[in-house]
Amino acid sequence: MKSVRHMGEDAIVERLIAHLPPAPAHLIVGPGDDCAVVPFSSTHWQLLKTDAIVEGIHFLPNENFERVGWKAIARVVSDFAAMGGTPQWFLVTLGIPSETDICHLETLYRGMSRCAQHYHAPIVGGETTRVSDSAGCVISIAATGLVKKSQLTLRSTARCGDAIFVSGLLGGSLAGRHLDITPRVNEAQWLTKNGYATAMMDLSDGLAKDLPRLAQSSGEGFQLDLAALPCQPGCEPQQALQDGEDYELLFTVSPQRVKSMVKRWSLAFPDTALTCIGRMVEKEKTMHFSGGWDHFAKKSP
Amino acid sequence: MKSVRHMGEDAIVERLIAHLPPAPAHLIVGPGDDCAVVPFSSTHWQLLKTDAIVEGIHFLPNENFERVGWKAIARVVSDFAAMGGTPQWFLVTLGIPSETDICHLETLYRGMSRCAQHYHAPIVGGETTRVSDSAGCVISIAATGLVKKSQLTLRSTARCGDAIFVSGLLGGSLAGRHLDITPRVNEAQWLTKNGYATAMMDLSDGLAKDLPRLAQSSGEGFQLDLAALPCQPGCEPQQALQDGEDYELLFTVSPQRVKSMVKRWSLAFPDTALTCIGRMVEKEKTMHFSGGWDHFAKKSP
Repeated sequence: MKSVRHMGEDAIVERLIAHLPPAPAHLIVGPGDDCAVVPFSSTHWQLLKTDAIVEGIHFLPNENFERVGWKAIARVVSDFAAMGGTPQWFLVTLGIPSETDICHLETLYRGMSRCAQHYHAPIVGGETTRVSDSAGCVISIAATGLVKKSQLTLRSTARCGDAIFVSGLLGGSLAGRHLDITPRVNEAQWLTKNGYATAMMDLSDGLAKDLPRLAQSSGEGFQLDLAALPCQPGCEPQQALQDGEDYELLFTVSPQRVKSMVKRWSLAFPDTALTCIGRMVEKEKTMHFSGGWDHFAKKSP
Repeated sequence: MKSVRHMGEDAIVERLIAHLPPAPAHLIVGPGDDCAVVPFSSTHWQLLKTDAIVEGIHFLPNENFERVGWKAIARVVSDFAAMGGTPQWFLVTLGIPSETDICHLETLYRGMSRCAQHYHAPIVGGETTRVSDSAGCVISIAATGLVKKSQLTLRSTARCGDAIFVSGLLGGSLAGRHLDITPRVNEAQWLTKNGYATAMMDLSDGLAKDLPRLAQSSGEGFQLDLAALPCQPGCEPQQALQDGEDYELLFTVSPQRVKSMVKRWSLAFPDTALTCIGRMVEKEKTMHFSGGWDHFAKKSP
């Protein structure tokens, strides 16, 4: 027997999706990007996403459940944002041990409901099921979103020579900041409406894990300027690389458009940092990283 | 603290959805039916559904994972069928302890993939996450489906005087039959195309649990003819009421259309039993049941 321990999430997913038949012709984007993309209307694609957080893995049992609820929904909003889209409908699946306090679950629901309302996308259903008494609560969010066809932005379309940018400041999530997510919906909408981002994803597992994913799915390499990393106050570059759960935008911009983008960003979002952290290069010239967040490789939080 | 133990799934869900804001005007059906129903096109509504099964609760650790995978997908197909719809896209969320055998997961995926292909609805994405080592695997399926507007059938629209029918034979799921689900897609399509079913749902938690749900959401009562219950070979009526996981159709037909429906059913589906098991009555004259499957009240499987 080979257990999934130490395999890493990407390797597990690769093994599993090998058992799926070839994608049908009308599927726009299948497994591998932030969301699946499927046909919807003459002007829009639909985005499909599931995302789960687990007590004892993604949040501590004594955490404020209202903030946990907010985080569960906000993580999915961040995925939609990273593809140029916005959320449409949410479904909530709760796996709960039978000794769970119903009041904790109500608090969790209040947090989820508050976040869903904030992003104008209702919770319209879901499911509750029992899990074993020794397990923690499992909160799995499924959601649909919409993206204008002209704004859809993938992680797989970065080009050699593109500048690499991140929004905001990185690192420090382990100190508690991971619960207070403000997905970069406005910034992502602005980038995609103006066609600035040649590729984009959100930073959920840390730059050290996510940038290689963007580069690999684009068939390119990257060179990172470690000294340029925008770190949260009190954080070292190592934390900005490794901590994960930043929920900032990682995106690439063609060199011809960098100057205009940077100037206009500072006017549109004077309070959101924007940093050029490197450049896409040929695959053979790429830097190599290890680390970043992987729940199959690490003990956490 | 009040734990969810013994509360029952319906009571938990009622407590939680009370924290949601009023449903938006463009939502067709929210929490409470088999699926949520949302706008899609000029001719179709979209169905949204999540459903989870848990190792040690819904299936045993030594179960054939290929059959478990089939079941996970088929349960959702059954929910779509019960509303007159068919599946469109699937997403798979796996919560897995780190000592899980990757080969088991691959077998699970083959079963899911086979079922999704059978119903012409691809698996297009998902998520894997770690759960605590003492928990069992959590398999959560999210899916979208489509239903012609003219065919949408709810559980809440049965009328006093309607005859109550079930497809197939009931009971015996605990003996292993629960893994071999053939959702009644063709029968449900036929019923809804011909406008026979005034209300419909699928039997997942047992007639003793599901018929009261249909009656309550319709604002009516029911009288059941226990002697008429169509039982699986070797099963007693008590098992037909209580076992759950039948995945048969429970539906109501207006008295004027019963004769025509029964005659045409026998020609269309000569191999599928069809049984009138009772009648919808005024709320005040309803029978009362207890029992049926509830994972918060029972030890199982």
